[in-house]
Amino acid sequence: MTTTSPSASAASTVFALETLDMPGGTETVLRGGRHLFPLLPEALAGVRRVGVVGWGPQGRAQARNLRDSLRGTGITVSVGLRPGSASAADARAHGFTEADGTLGDWLAVTAESDLVILLIADAALAAHHREIFAALKPGATIGLSHGFLLGHLRQTGGDFPPGHGVIAVCPKGMGDSVRRLYEQGAEVNGAGINSSYAVHADPDGHATDRALAWSVALGSPYTFRTTLESEYLSDIVGERAILLGAVHAIVESLYTRHRLAGADEVTAYERSCETITGPIARTVSRAGLRAVREGLDADGRDVFDRVYTASYGPAREIVAEIYDEVADGTELRGVVLAERRLGARPMSEIGGSPMWSVSARAHACRGERDLPVDPFAAGVFVATMTAQIDEFVERGHPWSEIVNESVIEAVDSLLPYMHARDVAYMVDNCSRTARLGARRWGPRFQAAYEQIAYPAAEHPADRALLASFTAHPVHEALAAAAKLRPSVDISVGVADAEDRVSGPSAGHRTA
Amino acid sequence: MTTTSPSASAASTVFALETLDMPGGTETVLRGGRHLFPLLPEALAGVRRVGVVGWGPQGRAQARNLRDSLRGTGITVSVGLRPGSASAADARAHGFTEADGTLGDWLAVTAESDLVILLIADAALAAHHREIFAALKPGATIGLSHGFLLGHLRQTGGDFPPGHGVIAVCPKGMGDSVRRLYEQGAEVNGAGINSSYAVHADPDGHATDRALAWSVALGSPYTFRTTLESEYLSDIVGERAILLGAVHAIVESLYTRHRLAGADEVTAYERSCETITGPIARTVSRAGLRAVREGLDADGRDVFDRVYTASYGPAREIVAEIYDEVADGTELRGVVLAERRLGARPMSEIGGSPMWSVSARAHACRGERDLPVDPFAAGVFVATMTAQIDEFVERGHPWSEIVNESVIEAVDSLLPYMHARDVAYMVDNCSRTARLGARRWGPRFQAAYEQIAYPAAEHPADRALLASFTAHPVHEALAAAAKLRPSVDISVGVADAEDRVSGPSAGHRTA
Repeated sequence: MTTTSPSASAASTVFALETLDMPGGTETVLRGGRHLFPLLPEALAGVRRVGVVGWGPQGRAQARNLRDSLRGTGITVSVGLRPGSASAADARAHGFTEADGTLGDWLAVTAESDLVILLIADAALAAHHREIFAALKPGATIGLSHGFLLGHLRQTGGDFPPGHGVIAVCPKGMGDSVRRLYEQGAEVNGAGINSSYAVHADPDGHATDRALAWSVALGSPYTFRTTLESEYLSDIVGERAILLGAVHAIVESLYTRHRLAGADEVTAYERSCETITGPIARTVSRAGLRAVREGLDADGRDVFDRVYTASYGPAREIVAEIYDEVADGTELRGVVLAERRLGARPMSEIGGSPMWSVSARAHACRGERDLPVDPFAAGVFVATMTAQIDEFVERGHPWSEIVNESVIEAVDSLLPYMHARDVAYMVDNCSRTARLGARRWGPRFQAAYEQIAYPAAEHPADRALLASFTAHPVHEALAAAAKLRPSVDISVGVADAEDRVSGPSAGHRTA
Repeated sequence: MTTTSPSASAASTVFALETLDMPGGTETVLRGGRHLFPLLPEALAGVRRVGVVGWGPQGRAQARNLRDSLRGTGITVSVGLRPGSASAADARAHGFTEADGTLGDWLAVTAESDLVILLIADAALAAHHREIFAALKPGATIGLSHGFLLGHLRQTGGDFPPGHGVIAVCPKGMGDSVRRLYEQGAEVNGAGINSSYAVHADPDGHATDRALAWSVALGSPYTFRTTLESEYLSDIVGERAILLGAVHAIVESLYTRHRLAGADEVTAYERSCETITGPIARTVSRAGLRAVREGLDADGRDVFDRVYTASYGPAREIVAEIYDEVADGTELRGVVLAERRLGARPMSEIGGSPMWSVSARAHACRGERDLPVDPFAAGVFVATMTAQIDEFVERGHPWSEIVNESVIEAVDSLLPYMHARDVAYMVDNCSRTARLGARRWGPRFQAAYEQIAYPAAEHPADRALLASFTAHPVHEALAAAAKLRPSVDISVGVADAEDRVSGPSAGHRTA
């Protein structure tokens, strides 16, 4: 990795971008860290006030990180909430108050801010973006943390307002992780959640620096460049596949499989949920995907190989279908229809499924012994993750985005959270767009595993498919990304996470 | 039921339409039968040749029924196939030959026919309807057996060609049943599959008579009026819900449930698949929906009540989602995307799931004892059927359509077929639109049953929901429809069906 002159379109006059060697070429990234905080005022030249609109998990984390990072610069961070918001008390408890002008009505905060970061729920964004756009001061920059609004505007024939910069900084993890790892970063420079950034409109030529400054101020260990379109696609597809929908399907299908084979409830739970959210996630986080297989004995590898090759095809078929429907607008249209329908009927929850009644007992057994990587669970999990990676590669996503959206966000943010609570709890407490997506596609994965993949796993492994896994370029990409990681274990301890995620506001998306 | 003067828009100058008392009003129907065959030439005035394009299950059945019914009238029925069609040999074996001019290229047959009945696969219709429209002779009438093409034209901004009548006659059963019951009708007047009819364009004022004549000639015991739009919606929704997708989900989820509770494989199969395709379907067919519950003892009713009320809500939620997506065009867009994607990858089959390896052994046990109605299976099945009925009522479908598309097609056509083979086999051998839909939505129902409904069935039944089932207007509607049924048992015997459905052309849609 060497310092380089970035291309004009990605030019920063403030930060020294670097290139990262990735399979097939290099990608431009910014390595973050607290030593860059003194550059923030210059990068945010012209910004006197940053308005964070919304106090969901991302708003709650980003507003605090930004305020802490910008302390002493004269740049104010204020929080805007819709009238009557139930979040006002929590925002005040975290030091944003009407008295000092850092808490107010969302349109008022929008009107007085130079950078307006929109972190309200997708449905609220869909319903109210026109009012917010109308309230913007001339030349103010619009900030997003995912591409939903772009998808929605395309779907409805709308557009961003002319004359305003449009930038995105998208942390590859839940809001809770964005805050917690930032706090760790006070001791270990650069601990944090990686982010992507995108410059969608740049009327004054300063959009790139503003986006990079925002990301540095959030504490991102590294920030990679993408487009709002690419971010949108990988984000929405990823949460429907390996991040939420598929992992829910994997653990439900494995639990049933082990129960049918006679395992007691706790053992079945351990060989489905516990092994994935625990040792498998930790192994991938610390040593990459290949290490999961390499850590198994000969019998375990045989199981892994058969399950991997039986699961890859059915999983890939569904990931391709999700991608098609997201890219086409069909998926987002389904979300809009669901929101309309669910105005009348509440969404039922999935945490009542038999396996989740076992989680407390299974958690109580932790520490009695070291739970191993279960080879069957590892096979289906790694196959599905690889299927998603391959679909993203085929669709032309940058490698930084692929590994963050398919691997790092899963093993460093979501799975540790699921380990602390459980998978169904997490799905039930996500943003509605994510929750609807996981509910829509999880069952598709589950049926494919139960009806197609697991029966096929009785047959010998497909050696060619395994060879392509062993030689997969993702291993090089993960190793390159790992070099940028701080020397801190960002896995979350159980007690820590239990404490952290006790509120109903838990959720991995930006509102 | 009394003979009536139909409204001008539904006027027939040839057939005596009747009104049927249905909940909340009356609906116009035509009672069929062989005694009406002498009226066919008058009703088809101006039609010298009927061209049936396609030789799938519906084409194979309809072409033969029409030829037999029109024998001696001077009206010729010919079959049009695309160049190189593998179906030509079977069409010849059934007496359609190039030599006598009743078998030919699809565009040539289109060009010489006065009524062109399009029974090719949905994908072929989407790809080739423009060529077919261009080949029509002036004033020729276009005939359809479901509304897919209307949906496709809307989706793509196209339209039917001006100056041509557009009519639909849609048998509420598989092509195989349409032929088999017609043959029975030679002995029992009026045995057959009910059909809906729709007049979508009527430039010469004879479209209604042509449609009714077509339906009478197919052997429909009764023919009810609908619109192409309403037909399309109920057809596509129904096959995704109770006709295919949901019934597959019900039997898979029940089988797993019984296996987990310790039942042996054959018992689990009997309490899931066999009880539904056998005694439950027969009870509904002969005595209606309420009779399923009334035939149970006190303990059985308690189980039925708990499962019914636990399943209704989750099932309704998914039926509503399907309806929204079909009505919006989203579902059809998904089918188009899938067809494009599957050009490169074949669709995997679902018949390899563990439960289907049991079907031969379970079938071999038939006759050893009378399999009872299983109350748990009956609860989830009847709840899902009622949820579909209620969704159709809320969306304003006519009762004739509702009971045929939700109940009669299921218990008189599809379930008997599934009883003869098995459910997964049927799904794997359906039309691609149906198969894609069942694969898309079946897993959604299955997850809802396993994760939401069955756990909730441990709790006491919701008496209010049960009371609304007991007093449901569908019972009156089914009784009214039953009065029109011929006195023939249209359930299919196993040996009969085994013989009948052995070919790979089996499938319930029109191509």
